[in-house]
Amino acid sequence: MKVLGDIASGNCYKVKLVLAQLGIAHEWTHVAIGRGETRTAEFLRLNPNGKIPVLLLDNGEVLSESNAIINYLAEGSPLLPTDRLTRARVLEWQFFEQYSHEPYIAVARFINRYLGMPEHKRAEFESKQTGGLKALGVMEQQLGKTPFLVGEHYTIADVSLYAYTHVAHEGGFDLAAFPAVSTWVERVRQQPGHVTMEQFL
Amino acid sequence: MKVLGDIASGNCYKVKLVLAQLGIAHEWTHVAIGRGETRTAEFLRLNPNGKIPVLLLDNGEVLSESNAIINYLAEGSPLLPTDRLTRARVLEWQFFEQYSHEPYIAVARFINRYLGMPEHKRAEFESKQTGGLKALGVMEQQLGKTPFLVGEHYTIADVSLYAYTHVAHEGGFDLAAFPAVSTWVERVRQQPGHVTMEQFL
Repeated sequence: MKVLGDIASGNCYKVKLVLAQLGIAHEWTHVAIGRGETRTAEFLRLNPNGKIPVLLLDNGEVLSESNAIINYLAEGSPLLPTDRLTRARVLEWQFFEQYSHEPYIAVARFINRYLGMPEHKRAEFESKQTGGLKALGVMEQQLGKTPFLVGEHYTIADVSLYAYTHVAHEGGFDLAAFPAVSTWVERVRQQPGHVTMEQFL
Repeated sequence: MKVLGDIASGNCYKVKLVLAQLGIAHEWTHVAIGRGETRTAEFLRLNPNGKIPVLLLDNGEVLSESNAIINYLAEGSPLLPTDRLTRARVLEWQFFEQYSHEPYIAVARFINRYLGMPEHKRAEFESKQTGGLKALGVMEQQLGKTPFLVGEHYTIADVSLYAYTHVAHEGGFDLAAFPAVSTWVERVRQQPGHVTMEQFL
């Protein structure tokens, strides 16, 4: 299989981490955001929504949306339990991530780290702080009760939330105010087969 | 089981539609958005993220996030196929819905229909049009090829996208420009056990 993605994108990092931890052979093709590479006719034929990551299966099938891709990859592995309620809880955290976490924390990080905090983006950056802190607070409540997001075991829910949480400081968020989240970040980092965001495979 | 939700919310309607089509006995408790009912200490104990719908299972477990809830409810039914790739495609559309569709179409509808388009919200309403049209365009491409979003059969991916697409005109979107989407809206409406958004069960 082949992945089209940008190594600096948290959404792409989710896929890289799952591939690494499950030892799945693949080819990674670098597609950069912000250089128009997701807007070419060729790319839009693969994903009409113009977003990375994209997974190309050997049989020609194409799959987009980071969380859908890692659900596909983790099927049948310990990263995605088979119990009905646990699976629903994994999804609960992944939908939370896409709606209530990423649009604040990832976007604030993008403005600060990739756009270099231009003056005309400062108000947008600041408008993201309240939502980001709220999302971290929701995680803190859960991680004060269980070592991982859906309970005792590391799953793709942790992968999904780790992707942008562990670089939240780049979006202006201080994780020191969230001790259970901070401990969990370290716990995720210690999982077998972990690779960092910056690390090329 | 018990659902906490607002009948006028598309996210809650997804749950109502799946419960109706699968004939699942339940109790529905009305919780209104915009009257602070999702901000009470009692509600936040159930869902720290302060959002509806919320599903309360008979064993005391609580599940939030509309798309996670309908994945849970549809497990083992024809609305959620068991094939690995098809399941991933259902999720692909549901994550698309939460990130690239709902934040534009549902929010524009909310400003127009529920807030009555106040002058200070007009710029935000207008800023939602491009993203909403893009999302409808992505759906149009797929529905020009297959009768339902993931292929030949009606699944919870169709439920998730139908919820706000069929009322997109209330957000200023003209579905006449999307003939395949319009035909699909009618096709979804004809599915056995369909209930409308306004219909109390």
